[in-house]
Formats: sequence, structure tokens, C-alpha cells
Amino acid sequence: MQVVCEGLDLCDAVITVSRAIGARTTNPILEGIKIVADEDVLTLSATDLELSIEKKIKAEVKVEGEVVVPGKFFSELVKKLTNEKIELKLNENNLMKIKYTDSETVLQCFPVYEFPSFQKLDSTDFFGVSKKNFKNLISKTTFSVALDDARPILKGCLLEIEDGKVKAVSLDGYRLALSVQKIKESNLSVSVVVPAKSLNEISKLLDDEDEIINIYLQRNFMMVDLNDCIITTRLLEGDFINYKQIIGNEFDTKITVNKKQLEDALERASLLSKIGQNNFVQFDLRDKLLSITSRSEIGNARENLNIVFGGKELVIAFNARYFMDALKVIQDEFINIKFNSAQNPCVITPFEGEEERYLFLILPLRPMGAM
Amino acid sequence: MQVVCEGLDLCDAVITVSRAIGARTTNPILEGIKIVADEDVLTLSATDLELSIEKKIKAEVKVEGEVVVPGKFFSELVKKLTNEKIELKLNENNLMKIKYTDSETVLQCFPVYEFPSFQKLDSTDFFGVSKKNFKNLISKTTFSVALDDARPILKGCLLEIEDGKVKAVSLDGYRLALSVQKIKESNLSVSVVVPAKSLNEISKLLDDEDEIINIYLQRNFMMVDLNDCIITTRLLEGDFINYKQIIGNEFDTKITVNKKQLEDALERASLLSKIGQNNFVQFDLRDKLLSITSRSEIGNARENLNIVFGGKELVIAFNARYFMDALKVIQDEFINIKFNSAQNPCVITPFEGEEERYLFLILPLRPMGAM
Repeated sequence: MQVVCEGLDLCDAVITVSRAIGARTTNPILEGIKIVADEDVLTLSATDLELSIEKKIKAEVKVEGEVVVPGKFFSELVKKLTNEKIELKLNENNLMKIKYTDSETVLQCFPVYEFPSFQKLDSTDFFGVSKKNFKNLISKTTFSVALDDARPILKGCLLEIEDGKVKAVSLDGYRLALSVQKIKESNLSVSVVVPAKSLNEISKLLDDEDEIINIYLQRNFMMVDLNDCIITTRLLEGDFINYKQIIGNEFDTKITVNKKQLEDALERASLLSKIGQNNFVQFDLRDKLLSITSRSEIGNARENLNIVFGGKELVIAFNARYFMDALKVIQDEFINIKFNSAQNPCVITPFEGEEERYLFLILPLRPMGAM
Repeated sequence: MQVVCEGLDLCDAVITVSRAIGARTTNPILEGIKIVADEDVLTLSATDLELSIEKKIKAEVKVEGEVVVPGKFFSELVKKLTNEKIELKLNENNLMKIKYTDSETVLQCFPVYEFPSFQKLDSTDFFGVSKKNFKNLISKTTFSVALDDARPILKGCLLEIEDGKVKAVSLDGYRLALSVQKIKESNLSVSVVVPAKSLNEISKLLDDEDEIINIYLQRNFMMVDLNDCIITTRLLEGDFINYKQIIGNEFDTKITVNKKQLEDALERASLLSKIGQNNFVQFDLRDKLLSITSRSEIGNARENLNIVFGGKELVIAFNARYFMDALKVIQDEFINIKFNSAQNPCVITPFEGEEERYLFLILPLRPMGAM
């Protein structure tokens, strides 16, 4: 292998594929980045066996070939060479010479046969969605997946593709997040569960453009095609929880509140509540007024907010963090929150527009902080 | 005490004085911020017993008084209230009510008598120096103080005030840094040793302006007067090392090199050397060419640089980090480096202008990484 490429292109590709390298790897080859030189293209790829990312850049290929470089070192080096032309030349014994300016580094590389081969998808099952909308879908749901391994399926987001829409759902036993986006060019009707970790890495590679990307589904894999970059992730096996029965539809109290004001008030109130346990804050709901109170051994806070109020007065307690996590991913100026009793979850939905765009459900805490 | 002030002013003052609160405090009162309301001024102060910072802001004082608030919580709260008017009202039992918008937090505060009283300096021994120059002096020296407690005096910088100049010197047994700046309005001739930690905090409160500030010296204290902000630090007791005898003046090899090119080359070479021990890099000096080599089990690097060369050829090894630390604080485009033998330290000085502006001395490593 002998190629010349631009440092900036190589750096960009290395940063992109490095997202698939796990933080704690026991197998050294999984810390590697595979480089294939073929015609006038350099293809870089990396994988942690769950997520794989492949990226192509232009290069002047003098001799075709392939090699696996130590990922961390190679990435640190090319990050310092973004203004240079870089020549990569593979010698015998997997020694690769990296030439730049008047200098060079010789690197001991891995043999390619040790590197896991990629799942190649040839599925015709796909749906189109804009980058912006898919990024939005991910941001509204992955934060509420389960973090522990007690029920592995809950570490993923359910994606339901149906009726020209993709619906994402995640839940961790204390809260549920649901988000819906339109899709294009698809008659698919299928449900899969995607690891939240993979979705978060995919999200980092998406921007807020309206450009449509295609997402392919096949057996136990999902593939996102960004043209010069292909991201493949394993799906989680097993049945997701029947989330529809969790979301009730009878509510005795309904309020409309300014999202930012509620978020600011909760942030301040939780400065005290986070000192204690459970991040316990109490909502006191009455006509026109929401009072949020919190306390710890160093003091107590009362935040008062104007609201539009309907239904029965109610006193109910929450973990402030769960509320703030949901509010953080909402862009709307006003939101609706519906309550039933102090023992039942509340539901946050949009104030206007399509009611179905998103829904966040949060279980209450028992008054006085006892679960 | 009852006062009203602007959230932004209060926030700025709290952030400033919080720099004097130590990271690990065993005495809770030292985590506090003292607030004194007097006439139309609110004075905030904090101390870790070595460094004290006091800052004044304007306020509408309705009832004079004083209190010590829990620093961390108070600072987190006021950071979230920068757009609001804030009222502070001290009730009995050291309970302080903080009112903002329609909301309020009640905070359990500390009695003022528990807070350490500040050293009041009334010295007439002072020198004037521009903020920019004092900041520069600090940045060029504090990085090379000793970090361990073996010789406490080496955790400080020597400041020699003499002949209308202030000279700062620090050393840790492996390297030495020296920097000189002009001072104003002073016939002082005195040497003190200031804790590097205090100097670094002072530096963060300085900007790059030419405005002159006055620095007072008295007994075991130094005080920096920034008008609305007073910083006081204890001095270290004991004799500093006679640094002049460390800096030799016979050199057999002298080179001139582009500072940025040398820095970039060392950064890349040290990617390999930092994997091993000592961050060992070897300099090979000959006519017109400096070659820097490094190696580890995963590879080896050779960085070639054009230099202006004079004297004997030389092969000498260094800890790359010590070199990079010094280069990082130099703004000049070109520097001189003088060498004697592979066993003697090298000396980095300015290429042009006043030779005395700065000097960095670095001890070599023995070839092959053995100390």
C-alpha cells in the first residue's frame, strides 16, 4: 500500500470512525482502524462489534493494499497534521511509514486478517428521513433508556416504522419518552430495538439539515447511509415492553406552562433538593399558580410560576432531574402537563400543533421523599 | 442586613472571590463567603487562609449588616439569576432570605465571628506593574515550580524587585524558569517567595491591559490592588535556592530555531515517547539540521528541522514535556538554544530584543532513558 492524501481529510475520517472504538477494549485489534487503499479511494473503518463506522476519502493511490493501524496513536498523530500532505507507505512486517513535511513516523501495524469482517447489508427494506428529524428523534428518547443491565432490552430505543412515520420509545421504569417523525419513500411496517449508545453515536454524525438519508433494516442490523459514511449497528433481541398500556388517558388536572420558566425554576429548586436524596421537589397545583418547593438541611426554596390551570387542585412530588431531562429536549415555548392523582404519572405533551409529536411520562415520588 | 443588587454584579463578585475557596476544606467556615453591607456597597470575601480575595459591588443597602453564606450553594444559585434583581434579607438565627422574581430561597448561614479576620496591609512598600506584564511574568514561571512537598520553598516563585525591574524565578530540580518585567513608581529592593498557587489565581483575575496595578509587600504578605478587588496572599518563609550559580555561561553549541516548528515537531515526537518512560526524545544537532527522534514499542519517529547552527555537533536527550512547557509560554517567532555537553543543561533565550526577558533551563536525560 502506498497512498498520498490531505491531512485534513484523513483527520476528519479518523475522528468519524473512531466513534465506533469502545472506551474499554480487551481485544487490541478492536482499538485499530482498518485502512483500505483501492483505486482513488481510501476507506477507513472501525468497530466495537456492536457499532461499525466506515468512511471514504479521496486519495492518490500509488499501490493498493490494506492495513490495520493502532487507532488511538494514529488519530493523535493525524490530528496534528491537518495542514500537511501525508504519505502512507506499508512495508514488510506490517510496518507503515507515515511521511509528512520533512519528517516521518514508522508504525507497527496489525495484520488485516485479525480485524473482524463487517456485516454487509443488501436489504431493500429501508426508510428515508431527514438528518434533522432523525437527530431530533434520537435526542428526545435516548436519555431515558435504562442504564443498568437488569433488563438489557431497556438499554435500547424501540423504533416503530408504520404509516409513513417512525416512532421512538424508551423507558427505564421511572419514566418514558416517546417521539414521532415523518418518514419518506417507505411502505415499511416493522419494529426494531436499537442500542441507545449506537443511536447517540449516529446522532453525533448528523447535522440539522433537511437532507434525506436512507436507513436500512435487515435481520439483526440497522444501517445508516450518509453517502461517504456508512454506520451499521446490531439490534437488540427480545420483545420490548408494551408501552401503550403504561400511558393512561384519564387526567383530572391539566396545566399549560412556559417551558423555559419551569426549567429555570426546577434548576434553582433542585440546587437544594439534589443535596438530599431522590432530588425530591414538590408541585403544588392550584388556580393560576404552580408552586415548586424543595428543602435540605441548609435551607428551603419556593418557586412560583403563573400557569393556565384546569381541573382539580393537586399536591404531587417528583425527581426534579427526570423533569429537567425531558424539558431540556423540548424546543416549544409552552407545554401541557396532565396529572391524575399524586400516585399516578404525569404526562408532558406539546401545547400546540400535532399533539402526537412527543410525549414524556414521569412517575411521581411519594410525598416526603419515601419511595 | 437587607440589600437589593443586580444579579449579574453579585454573580461576578461571587465567581471572583470563590477562587480563594480551597478545593478540599476541612473547616466548613472556609467554604463560606462573607458578605458585608455597608453604606451603598456590598463587600464579598473568601479565604483559604493562604489566599484571600475581597470584591466590592454597588447595592441598595436598606439595613446594614453582615453574614457568611455557604459558598458553593450561594454561587450556584446566583449564577442562575444573572438577569434578575436580587434581595438579600437576613433574619434571626442567621437565616437569609434570597428573593428573586416571584420566588425565594431561605438559606441557613454561618455566624460572622467564626470567619477568619483578614490581614490588613498598611504598607507603603509597593511597586506598580501593568496587568499584562504581571500576567506574562506569572505565566512564564509558575509552570516549573516543584509539585511535591519535599522542599516547600520550591512550590513558590522568587520575586526579586530591584533596579526598576521585577524578576521571577522558579525551579523544580529538573528545570528552571526566569522572567523579567519592568516596574513603575518604585525604589524597592526586596526579594520574596510567593506560592505559585496564589500567583495562578491572581493571574486569572488579570487581563492583557496596560493599566498599572499596585502590589504591596509587608512582613509575610503580598497584596494586589485591583481597585474594586483586593487579593492578599501569604508569602513562603525560608531562603530560595541560589539560582544564579545553576545557570552556566559557557556554551559550545548554539542554535536558532523557529519556535512553532520546534513545538509542533516535539508534540508529534512525544506521541510515541510518552508511551514509554521519561518522555524521552533525542536531539541530534549538526550543521543546519536538528533531528528529533523518539521511539516506543509501537514505532519510531524522526522529525527534521532547519536551524541556524554554530559550534560543536552534539547528541543530547530531554524529557519532551519540559521542553514543550517552556515553548508554550514563549510568544517569539524564533528562539536561541545553547548547549554545552550531553550532561549539561541547555538554555532557551530570546533570539532578538532584550536577551534578559526570559530564560528557561532544562536538564538533559542520560542517553537511552536512564536517569
